[in-house]
Amino acid sequence: MSDTPAPLKVGALIFPGFELLDLFGPLEMFGMLKEGASITVLAEKAGIVRSSQGPEAVATEALGGSHGLDILLVPGGIGTRKLAENAAFIAELRSQCEKARYVATVCTGSGLVARTGVLDGRRATSNKFSFRWASSQGPAVTWVRKARWVEDGKFFTSSGVSAGMDMTLGLIAHLLGRDVSIKVANHAEYTWHEDKDNDPFADINIPL
Amino acid sequence: MSDTPAPLKVGALIFPGFELLDLFGPLEMFGMLKEGASITVLAEKAGIVRSSQGPEAVATEALGGSHGLDILLVPGGIGTRKLAENAAFIAELRSQCEKARYVATVCTGSGLVARTGVLDGRRATSNKFSFRWASSQGPAVTWVRKARWVEDGKFFTSSGVSAGMDMTLGLIAHLLGRDVSIKVANHAEYTWHEDKDNDPFADINIPL
Repeated sequence: MSDTPAPLKVGALIFPGFELLDLFGPLEMFGMLKEGASITVLAEKAGIVRSSQGPEAVATEALGGSHGLDILLVPGGIGTRKLAENAAFIAELRSQCEKARYVATVCTGSGLVARTGVLDGRRATSNKFSFRWASSQGPAVTWVRKARWVEDGKFFTSSGVSAGMDMTLGLIAHLLGRDVSIKVANHAEYTWHEDKDNDPFADINIPL
Repeated sequence: MSDTPAPLKVGALIFPGFELLDLFGPLEMFGMLKEGASITVLAEKAGIVRSSQGPEAVATEALGGSHGLDILLVPGGIGTRKLAENAAFIAELRSQCEKARYVATVCTGSGLVARTGVLDGRRATSNKFSFRWASSQGPAVTWVRKARWVEDGKFFTSSGVSAGMDMTLGLIAHLLGRDVSIKVANHAEYTWHEDKDNDPFADINIPL
């Protein structure tokens, strides 16, 4: 069991070119906690943001400021490339990573967070096809190429896209116990890949 | 291989209380086709629509009218209960189901489509916890309780939430070949549950 007071405050970052499933897979799992979690969607500025796949989502609050987050969720997507060069955004992301109790990344989201420097000296992973780009964003990070997800202190970083759901269930297990994660996975009719070191895609998706 | 001309035109329905992963899991898989698919988000009226979990998405077009869809995607979610009682909406949904080349549903989305009558005499499935509600919407449908997804002519209906991704890969395989689905799944680092008759949740999630 956990000493976490309910509800878990989840802040989900979006930006132009975010990857749909990176964001909404984890949010589905947090959402299954019902009154146990509250979700706020954040962006550099509040408003409508277009995903990498086209569909648009709404950020109801700007990233800046104090959100009192238990979990800051950072997805990946093609938009990370441009965002990593936005110094003001990276400074704000660093500040939010420092303030949040936990930081959870999916896919190339770990590249963005690595760029802020907060992962320096820590273990982390990322999407397999984009591993070179992600790892180049944090030369002082210990990048783990073969992992479904990696836990290091308050940082939970996952591999590509679908791995975000497994990592989120790992984070829910860490905070609320494994039984809760099993229940969430069953409700979502999702087969949780519970072993974070079992990464079948590390040998399939060889980075270019 | 397929005679389907690219890009596949996917129309994704949203409504207040739609389930996030029901929608965005399939859209991630279609999105992986890149220029091979174009996605339009539809709702009863164009505008911002709140999901069951809180986060909001944007419908850029109203459901009514002619969309020339290859695939109409209908998610589930708690909002289906109210929507099923909206006669004008159900009539429009029926018309769109008749016009689309394929209709793909996730979770209780099959209940909504069943309500229109277009599934009468056909085989279909739905979410396990909500099976009673979904099946009550179409007494003349042959409901299959144990299936990851069911294919019957142009109708692809899936079980709960995560099953939508497996069904979508099944539909992509049907239209574009299995190799394309394998490639999409690998890019999404998703372990495709390819056997549509293998439903581990039918015996876990017993409806109330």
